[in-house]
Amino acid sequence: MKILLIGGSGNIGRAIVDELAGRHEIITAGRHHGDVQMDIENEQSIIEMYRRLPRLDAVAVATGGRNGHVGPLAEMSAERYRVGFDSKLMGQVNVVLRGIEKLNDGGSFTLVGGAWQPQAIAPLLSNVYMANAALEGFVNAAAVELPRGLRINLVSPLLLAESEAEYGPLFRGVPLVEARQAARAYSLSMEGAQTGQTYRLGRFD
Amino acid sequence: MKILLIGGSGNIGRAIVDELAGRHEIITAGRHHGDVQMDIENEQSIIEMYRRLPRLDAVAVATGGRNGHVGPLAEMSAERYRVGFDSKLMGQVNVVLRGIEKLNDGGSFTLVGGAWQPQAIAPLLSNVYMANAALEGFVNAAAVELPRGLRINLVSPLLLAESEAEYGPLFRGVPLVEARQAARAYSLSMEGAQTGQTYRLGRFD
Ligand SMILES: NC(=O)c1ccc[n+]([C@@H]2O[C@H](COP(=O)([O-])OP(=O)(O)OC[C@H]3O[C@@H](n4cnc5c(N)ncnc54)[C@H](OP(=O)(O)O)[C@@H]3O)[C@@H](O)[C@H]2O)c1
Ligand SMILES: NC(=O)c1ccc[n+]([C@@H]2O[C@H](COP(=O)([O-])OP(=O)(O)OC[C@H]3O[C@@H](n4cnc5c(N)ncnc54)[C@H](OP(=O)(O)O)[C@@H]3O)[C@@H](O)[C@H]2O)c1
Repeated sequence: MKILLIGGSGNIGRAIVDELAGRHEIITAGRHHGDVQMDIENEQSIIEMYRRLPRLDAVAVATGGRNGHVGPLAEMSAERYRVGFDSKLMGQVNVVLRGIEKLNDGGSFTLVGGAWQPQAIAPLLSNVYMANAALEGFVNAAAVELPRGLRINLVSPLLLAESEAEYGPLFRGVPLVEARQAARAYSLSMEGAQTGQTYRLGRFD
Repeated sequence: MKILLIGGSGNIGRAIVDELAGRHEIITAGRHHGDVQMDIENEQSIIEMYRRLPRLDAVAVATGGRNGHVGPLAEMSAERYRVGFDSKLMGQVNVVLRGIEKLNDGGSFTLVGGAWQPQAIAPLLSNVYMANAALEGFVNAAAVELPRGLRINLVSPLLLAESEAEYGPLFRGVPLVEARQAARAYSLSMEGAQTGQTYRLGRFD
């Protein structure tokens, strides 16, 4: 397969490369690193990225740009909620909407979620939970509409072991997920047969 | 309890009144009908509504204004997705954010969802599914942050029997939900003890 991987230089992105580069051709994209430069928060830059690429068999996204506004519920506002919608959510949605024509029949999109409900465990994250839940709704609804056997799934890790230093204080006590495990969920999405699924990683059970 | 019911004149709203008016005091609100006039899509009008009301024990919402842009995935855009976010989603989120101070200790918010994942069954509804999923994420995340024992839940009916003539063509074959059953879920949310829950109505099993 020819795979476009957006966010290929990050924790999850590097693990996806490790998992898949041996058996597939991977084109990486990012703001600063990778084969193609683009900003997922900028729709025009998504359009231009696709224009420069050949036809693809899979698009895997391992970044949503900013993840959302992190702050107490009491200080949230419509404007702050826009952060998660405009970046994490609509950035990835635009990658799908603009990429449909670029995928070969039977191709797939794999998006990235994160802190997932119905097991909200931490305060300050209402914007993050909302954007990730909306991504689940999108993936689930888009799956029944995509043409030509195209598929779409969401990989939702809770907290990566690799990111404990950065995000650990927001998520004390949750089971850690190795980036390598998240990469296996990308493999399941791209190399398997399912669609409309959310693969949640970081359960206690 | 003193209950504010937004959308009290609709199918679900009337059924909530039937279920609860015998044992609680209900103040209804809507654009044209009810005790108080307000537009849930307009944040300023939410602020003014609360200013005119006494302290409350529960806020129940049975409308999201517009439900979202209904249209094929291939014709969706960031702008069209904004419809569901600005109305159904942020309208209800604003009712919560602005209402926290107005609720007595132990009070509750009950919001309304609709077409729910992970069982997306119909095309044209990606905006609706996204907004409703985001509401689940919000309710779930807000539950861990609300102060003073305040609770919050979401009632998510699939298709009301009362609305089959209007929305039936979008949802052929799904189990119908009586508005009276949806009203019982509002009772469970307001008169029960749970928080952060989504009550899904319209399952096959
Ligand atoms: N880390 C966690 O614990 C965790 C848990 C749950 C979910 N997630 C989700 O998974 C995603 C990836 O996590 P990670 O730890 O692998 O992130 P990371 O190590 O910070 O890497 C981010 C990657 O995305 C690229 N990138 C960042 N902003 C971009 C933008 N606006 N446009 C295009 N590319 C951009 C970066 O490359 P450039 O520098 O070249 O832009 C880099 O390749 C996160 O965004 C988050 O949504 C992470
Ligand atoms: N009907 C279904 O099959 C179904 C299924 C799943 C989910 N839902 C959700 O449940 C909600 C209620 O459904 P329903 O069938 O009871 O609706 P409905 O019969 O159309 O009633 C809507 C109610 O909300 C009020 N309203 C409408 N727009 C408003 C606005 N912008 N600001 C304030 N109030 C407004 C209306 O009163 P005024 O005329 O005074 O504004 C009315 O009381 C829907 O909005 C939808 O989100 C419905």
